[in-house]
Amino acid sequence: MTTTIAAISTPFGIGGIAVIRLSGPEAFSIASSHLTLPKPEGSRPATAFTQFKVNGALLDEVVATAFSVPHSYTGDDTVEISCHGSLYVQQTILQAFLDSGARLAEPGEFTRRAFLNGKLDLSQAEAVADLIDSTNAASHSLAVSQLRGGYAKELEQLRQQLVDLTALLELELDFSDEDVEFADRKRLMSLASQIYTRVVALRQSFHMGNALKRGIPVAIIGRPNAGKSSLLNALLHDNRAIVSDIPGTTRDTIEETFVIEGTAFRIIDTAGLRHSDDPIEHLGIQRTIETVVQADIVLYVHDATQPFVQVLDDLQQLQDIRPFNDKHLFIVNNKIDLVPEAPTAPYRTFPLSAKEGTGLEALTAALAKAVQTDLAQAPDVMLTNARHYEALGHIEQALLLVGKGLGDHIPADLIVIDLRDALHHLGTITGQVTTDEVLGSIFSRFCVGK
Amino acid sequence: MTTTIAAISTPFGIGGIAVIRLSGPEAFSIASSHLTLPKPEGSRPATAFTQFKVNGALLDEVVATAFSVPHSYTGDDTVEISCHGSLYVQQTILQAFLDSGARLAEPGEFTRRAFLNGKLDLSQAEAVADLIDSTNAASHSLAVSQLRGGYAKELEQLRQQLVDLTALLELELDFSDEDVEFADRKRLMSLASQIYTRVVALRQSFHMGNALKRGIPVAIIGRPNAGKSSLLNALLHDNRAIVSDIPGTTRDTIEETFVIEGTAFRIIDTAGLRHSDDPIEHLGIQRTIETVVQADIVLYVHDATQPFVQVLDDLQQLQDIRPFNDKHLFIVNNKIDLVPEAPTAPYRTFPLSAKEGTGLEALTAALAKAVQTDLAQAPDVMLTNARHYEALGHIEQALLLVGKGLGDHIPADLIVIDLRDALHHLGTITGQVTTDEVLGSIFSRFCVGK
Repeated sequence: MTTTIAAISTPFGIGGIAVIRLSGPEAFSIASSHLTLPKPEGSRPATAFTQFKVNGALLDEVVATAFSVPHSYTGDDTVEISCHGSLYVQQTILQAFLDSGARLAEPGEFTRRAFLNGKLDLSQAEAVADLIDSTNAASHSLAVSQLRGGYAKELEQLRQQLVDLTALLELELDFSDEDVEFADRKRLMSLASQIYTRVVALRQSFHMGNALKRGIPVAIIGRPNAGKSSLLNALLHDNRAIVSDIPGTTRDTIEETFVIEGTAFRIIDTAGLRHSDDPIEHLGIQRTIETVVQADIVLYVHDATQPFVQVLDDLQQLQDIRPFNDKHLFIVNNKIDLVPEAPTAPYRTFPLSAKEGTGLEALTAALAKAVQTDLAQAPDVMLTNARHYEALGHIEQALLLVGKGLGDHIPADLIVIDLRDALHHLGTITGQVTTDEVLGSIFSRFCVGK
Repeated sequence: MTTTIAAISTPFGIGGIAVIRLSGPEAFSIASSHLTLPKPEGSRPATAFTQFKVNGALLDEVVATAFSVPHSYTGDDTVEISCHGSLYVQQTILQAFLDSGARLAEPGEFTRRAFLNGKLDLSQAEAVADLIDSTNAASHSLAVSQLRGGYAKELEQLRQQLVDLTALLELELDFSDEDVEFADRKRLMSLASQIYTRVVALRQSFHMGNALKRGIPVAIIGRPNAGKSSLLNALLHDNRAIVSDIPGTTRDTIEETFVIEGTAFRIIDTAGLRHSDDPIEHLGIQRTIETVVQADIVLYVHDATQPFVQVLDDLQQLQDIRPFNDKHLFIVNNKIDLVPEAPTAPYRTFPLSAKEGTGLEALTAALAKAVQTDLAQAPDVMLTNARHYEALGHIEQALLLVGKGLGDHIPADLIVIDLRDALHHLGTITGQVTTDEVLGSIFSRFCVGK
């Protein structure tokens, strides 16, 4: 017995139009008490201009679209009202639906119903939230790929392999009375190892997937007054220019993040950009190390008016304490507007004037290329969700036990327990196995109205 | 040669869904290069789920609705895309339309086209902006009535009367060779006077119309520490409670305004609530007078622990300097929680404890009733627009000249000039007479996407 739910689905605020969504078994009858509902024909939704009335009085002239079960987002009968974007009108329409018997939708409840009605699996539902949160091409493309099922296919293959392995072991069980251990435990080992490798690769893709989704972490380091903040501002400004011809783009949404060729880069630990006044700790070395550890990319900013040997000293000192050969390192030779001639350096440097904005292009092109190089080595399907990462961790553990069990000639029925554990955790990702608690925590991430 | 325009029509931000609107002669072909457009049949718009592609790559799964000329808001072919409410998706769809040949819509340009295509007259187009800005039942109802044409009908009647009067005078002109002054100049005088009275009444309704639209101006006055701020907070809180069960309602939008039974009350000149430290100027009298002059309603707050004679002194002093018998006056006897017994007073007072929230209901009921009394005396059609108020001022002036001309037996052809002037100004209200400059200033009030 599902109730009918309603919510304002468009962003909060005043706009040209707003959309109120109503979905559930009573959606058509509730809507019909306020407007003349167009009649959908089969799978085709129906749209019409109509008057929205509250207690017989005209509230607004709206566009109403009716989607009939199961041909809607949720899979239930659904009505979407496109009204004038006044706060008063939006709220009065919502209130009218609530007064006529609908209930206010919880965050993500429309998508939750889509999941419960089998329109999406759980990882696709989560992709909807990621899609809504996406602010750049890379995070968006990850979400779309997850929503479109590339990821779901990968998980399905994994599940199939686990089921196959379980079946083979159960076959062995069927013959256990004969106390025969099948000769092809080696084959089973090889299969288990294949699955394990796949799970490990998928888990490892989380680093890149998460970086693409949240922004590739970049540490900007360097001595005081080298111009780290100016470089940051120049990078942020450069990015903002890209979106500035689209009205309404605010600075807030991309704070401390800049986008190059569709990929977001996230400045980590801006506190690390400040420096200790203690002359002994000349690079604020501890802070810098913490920043570098979290980063995928290190931008070392050098003041071109100072001797280049500083760079070598600083990097050597860092390397001694905490090697960072796994990071991309870019050395920026800043303030070239102040030196008559670019100094020669033993390393590739990026001559740049953050103040005058020169040299930025070469740097951003190099940043983009570094990401592309990493991406070329990354698997097609990438993990972006911490919940899935955790579930895959359980699967990895279970598979380790399976491999050990097979090696130690442990009875098949015990090994099957570990395989079932792996299948259980896989099921939590796609939603075949789930609890209200898990669903609650997933959908609470959503906005109301989706 | 109109271009095709595009904009994000929903409020700026991240939400469950967002709507991008595309309108103009190329709307269908531009949309079709990104999605499979459903085919509208005659006056019926068509809606379908479809994939939105950019350069062949899937961007989002959207709902597209196509409205064919003239059965759309603008009167041109129009496509509305309902997409996932990610900033990236919204902006990428908009950008895709711009790249495919559309132009970014200016503020209000969709409504401007509706006006140019004869779907709305100018005063109705202005009502759309008012409707979007409306935050309470009263301002909303004024906008709907203007949009629905009650106001347009009033203007049309006025125009008809002016045309009739002109025709009668021109009839006289036709016979002017015979040097006959028609006997019924009296009838013309009476007709002119009728029109004049109507224009004056309409202009006078601006005070009430504007107050309803922006909020009835309320002055809260009283001695220091009488509890004016507490009363204001109690009133604001009481109002906010009404809308607090609808998510997303922010305090910002109703700042310094409270709503009782659908009517907004606006606290004017909060500076007037502060008081001079000068003991001689014991009520900060000058400031208070300024506040009272602007107000329709005066709330005098008295501290019930003080002698009631203070109230009489203060009001008498105000009245002596600046009579305010045209305002509604309410005397609030605050802090009744601190006195053992409510003091008897020679006037009706509202015993109240702003601190404990008691007595508020009787006060708000009385405020609502005062507005209803005023409304009962107000004309059905009310002026809410300053531009119209100004135009009607010109008409009023022209009609004064017409009346004077008729009385002074001035030749008909000179009087007709004034009548044509009146008709011209009437035309500026409905948009029959207009300039790009006027249109520009009207539509710049709109949000982009409407």
